[in-house]
Amino acid sequence: MHTIDLIRKTRDRLPLTEAEIHFLVTGAATESIPLEQLAAWLMAARLNGLALDEIRSLTLAMRDSGVRFDPRPLNQSAVDKHSTGGVGDKTSFLVAPIAAACGLIVPMISGRALGHTGGTLDKLEAIPGFRTALSLSEFEAVLRHAGAAIVSQTPDLVPADRVLYALRDRTGTVESPGLICASILSKKLAAGLDALVLDVKTGSGAFLRDPAEAEFLAALLVSTAEAAGTRAVALLTDMGQPLGYAAGNWIELVEAVELLGNQRNPGSEDLRELSLQLAAWMIHLGGQASSPRHGYALAEATLHNGSALDRFLAMVTAQGGDASVFDRAPSFHRPGATHTLTAAQSGWIAALDTTALGWAVQRLGAGRETAGAPVDPHAGIRFHHRRGDRLQQGDPFATLYATRADLFPEAIDLIQSAIQWSDTPPQPVPLVHSILDRARAQAILASRS
Amino acid sequence: MHTIDLIRKTRDRLPLTEAEIHFLVTGAATESIPLEQLAAWLMAARLNGLALDEIRSLTLAMRDSGVRFDPRPLNQSAVDKHSTGGVGDKTSFLVAPIAAACGLIVPMISGRALGHTGGTLDKLEAIPGFRTALSLSEFEAVLRHAGAAIVSQTPDLVPADRVLYALRDRTGTVESPGLICASILSKKLAAGLDALVLDVKTGSGAFLRDPAEAEFLAALLVSTAEAAGTRAVALLTDMGQPLGYAAGNWIELVEAVELLGNQRNPGSEDLRELSLQLAAWMIHLGGQASSPRHGYALAEATLHNGSALDRFLAMVTAQGGDASVFDRAPSFHRPGATHTLTAAQSGWIAALDTTALGWAVQRLGAGRETAGAPVDPHAGIRFHHRRGDRLQQGDPFATLYATRADLFPEAIDLIQSAIQWSDTPPQPVPLVHSILDRARAQAILASRS
Repeated sequence: MHTIDLIRKTRDRLPLTEAEIHFLVTGAATESIPLEQLAAWLMAARLNGLALDEIRSLTLAMRDSGVRFDPRPLNQSAVDKHSTGGVGDKTSFLVAPIAAACGLIVPMISGRALGHTGGTLDKLEAIPGFRTALSLSEFEAVLRHAGAAIVSQTPDLVPADRVLYALRDRTGTVESPGLICASILSKKLAAGLDALVLDVKTGSGAFLRDPAEAEFLAALLVSTAEAAGTRAVALLTDMGQPLGYAAGNWIELVEAVELLGNQRNPGSEDLRELSLQLAAWMIHLGGQASSPRHGYALAEATLHNGSALDRFLAMVTAQGGDASVFDRAPSFHRPGATHTLTAAQSGWIAALDTTALGWAVQRLGAGRETAGAPVDPHAGIRFHHRRGDRLQQGDPFATLYATRADLFPEAIDLIQSAIQWSDTPPQPVPLVHSILDRARAQAILASRS
Repeated sequence: MHTIDLIRKTRDRLPLTEAEIHFLVTGAATESIPLEQLAAWLMAARLNGLALDEIRSLTLAMRDSGVRFDPRPLNQSAVDKHSTGGVGDKTSFLVAPIAAACGLIVPMISGRALGHTGGTLDKLEAIPGFRTALSLSEFEAVLRHAGAAIVSQTPDLVPADRVLYALRDRTGTVESPGLICASILSKKLAAGLDALVLDVKTGSGAFLRDPAEAEFLAALLVSTAEAAGTRAVALLTDMGQPLGYAAGNWIELVEAVELLGNQRNPGSEDLRELSLQLAAWMIHLGGQASSPRHGYALAEATLHNGSALDRFLAMVTAQGGDASVFDRAPSFHRPGATHTLTAAQSGWIAALDTTALGWAVQRLGAGRETAGAPVDPHAGIRFHHRRGDRLQQGDPFATLYATRADLFPEAIDLIQSAIQWSDTPPQPVPLVHSILDRARAQAILASRS
């Protein structure tokens, strides 16, 4: 088999066989195919698209390109949740311990801050001592103890994705539904999941702002995961404003722990509701509830009875973290500088450019400019108001926490220009736009082809 | 300027500016842009196409990516001819000395055998001692002495093309009119030409068999060369059968020298006619004739009076070749094995698969399997018949010259299956389909956009 022939086929819109895709993926993982040939193939796939069979073959070949985690010795259903990323999205810290408290195991392999969105691993590392780089045997030990573990990708897990992901970033081939689907699912399926719940964001802070594109990706993800033997559902959810009141690293953990401890707050209601809906599907698809509605009730009970918080703190401790830090959360938070941003005018908040708000969070110190650089755990933004709120000029809109005071001006500009004011209240936007199960996903894909 | 932004623009069908294309080409020449990024851009350009302005910018930036040859000190118009390649195409050996004999200089930078087509340099190297790798000062000295020189590309001439050409070959991005145009013209224009005549082949032995595609490439070449300040014309010519009776290395030189010495032969008439028409345009555009018709008369005179042959032999000698070899041509030809192939049936030759005939020539030893391998100067095919001839079963069709007798069976199969027989004489095919000057080229491009 010759790589050049496979490039030509995708270039000429001829489908590749499973064996041909396996050849490309193995070549990427073992570095036996030169990067320039992989790059040409990626651009051809980006411009001509890939067929559903090709996307499925690509996902499975990537999943199998390295070692895999086998949760079967744990004798419980393995479930997970994946979000396409947003601002203030901290549902992982809720759904993982909720599902674990309902008798499931959650072997979650997560990522770092990327662009305007925060990273689950960066947030957890705000806890002193918390380790995200675990070996597979340490991973299994934490899961046995706490039911949930959140770790980073190891070098030998899905090596093909590591090569292709970095290459896509340099070659303008990121924005391809088929390549995105294979990248997301290969990593998730390598953890041996029985069920996967996908949170596909739309709106001003989403990677895919166009609802039709988001729906297509959601359908691809559900259909491909199901074809690989993993039960899956996707929720299309609103990222038209930050989720919850906190965006940053440490302050997001605090907001999650408040909800796990059953402390409610108007600014966190959307986060609580979305987390419960996602957990409900994890519990249902994992076989612990007869319906999502039943799963929702079980999930809510774990917040009321404290079992989800127990699981979370057990996970933190098992991964080397100092869980006592949550008992002294206010004193632990030591940002370099604090600034209260007030409303520049009076009116209703009609809409928010959530991507700009995400960049403001990152620029205050919560994100990184270059891969591998450290992040400031204490930087971030606490939002006091949301879309649809009515403010008077001078009312506090948000509290900004920065590494240094000189980082405020850029962030303030970003935030002020991200607010769209109106003289009338805006139409409410639903938190969950739609739910795609396998049948709905297949209907969407059929209507597209 | 960031390469990734330029890749994204071409990917999204947004035009690149001259400065942006210059950045890419310089990055290719200096190897400061990684090959995988160039490969992604090439595939985007291959699939989305390039605009006329982009093709012009690409051609000029590539031309200027290394040193250039300046013919002005020679005080004569510099002209050249380029063919898109065919089987038995040896017009260079005629047009270069003819134009030189008419008071022009012909600084010809040529290539090697590629696929089913032979290489001008490989043919010349059949002459003992002939050197094609000249420095620019040696090149100038030969031109001063003989008026014509045929040399190989030097490492510092158009380095961007060397990088991009090799990359296109590996990444499935060869077949792009814009990239082909820039590759051809950058090399030709780096020789500082006043005029360029393009021989764009169509038919069964051509790189572009579809006449519409060949016409579009011809129009691109003429329009781009003229925009760069070089007078240009393209002849769309038939490659539905080998040009002349000989295909190989040494035997092609012999056929050319026979015509230069005014020996005529029915099997060489198409070669003679096409060479005179191409030379006529070189002489006209180079300013030595008031019209192509006048140029044709001048060209023919150089064959009659022996001045073209003198120029050819002077060039051979100046490039280190032993010109006396043409005085003992029959004894110099020492193929490893000879075989006469006869007609498998009776009838008219209706058509020929000239690409298959070209592969037969190469497989007999005249071509190479891998870059840099030696070629056999004595291998080749002498065709005794042409399209439209009527043969009886058993009549000799061609004489095959091979490096070794075991190479015959594959070549014989290729040739026998390349002949399409008919019970009736076929329609004649014109040698020159059409002539594209600047106005005609622009009309074709305008009708396409």
